[in-house]
Amino acid sequence: MDTLEKIKFDNFGLIPSIVQDFKTGEVLMLAWMNKESLRLTIKNQQAVYYSRSRKKLWFKGEESGHVQHIKAIYTDCDNDTILLKVEQVGGIACHTGRKSCFFQKLVGDNWESVAKVIKDPKQIYG
Amino acid sequence: MDTLEKIKFDNFGLIPSIVQDFKTGEVLMLAWMNKESLRLTIKNQQAVYYSRSRKKLWFKGEESGHVQHIKAIYTDCDNDTILLKVEQVGGIACHTGRKSCFFQKLVGDNWESVAKVIKDPKQIYG
Repeated sequence: MDTLEKIKFDNFGLIPSIVQDFKTGEVLMLAWMNKESLRLTIKNQQAVYYSRSRKKLWFKGEESGHVQHIKAIYTDCDNDTILLKVEQVGGIACHTGRKSCFFQKLVGDNWESVAKVIKDPKQIYG
Repeated sequence: MDTLEKIKFDNFGLIPSIVQDFKTGEVLMLAWMNKESLRLTIKNQQAVYYSRSRKKLWFKGEESGHVQHIKAIYTDCDNDTILLKVEQVGGIACHTGRKSCFFQKLVGDNWESVAKVIKDPKQIYG
């Protein structure tokens, strides 16, 4: 796909992807994509990442049901970062059961958890 | 600083930092930080990154005047990504003179430029 030609993947073949709620603008997570996952994300209009820990494609929501429908895809001035605007099914992007992965806020010298767990991960992942 | 102990930098000593407009929620850019730049960002309450191309600290806005005042700092569930909410001085984060670096939107098979240049980079950088 010519669309992907200008996109710059790093030395590991990966590109960081920022994921944002298309309605509220809340940043939900940052995940990594390889060329194949970006191609599939565009094709399926549903987020597919590359799991660096599991070393394989990660079809977001495969287990949890918390899939992300693509509303828009952007790249930046250097073509080395992706921004996805998504509809987050279930309202939970994080494996901790929170809406966003960015729930730890720096308050003074401490990282405080500032977002509630919407659903117990044990219930999400069975 | 104990605050930085739990933060996980990659094998190159870097961590990706998402930068978001604290008022509108618009994602402005993604930049990289090393430990020193994160420490200085917290201390100065102004964004300091690490330039991978120039291989040195990058005091954002040093040349352009487009500094970023820190409104909030978050880390994610894995402690391997930073999210900054900032006040973008001059309303321009991108070196192309646009507000956000994410001005290329995928429309069909093409990346279309969907944001206007607010200020000519020649005027910004002299």
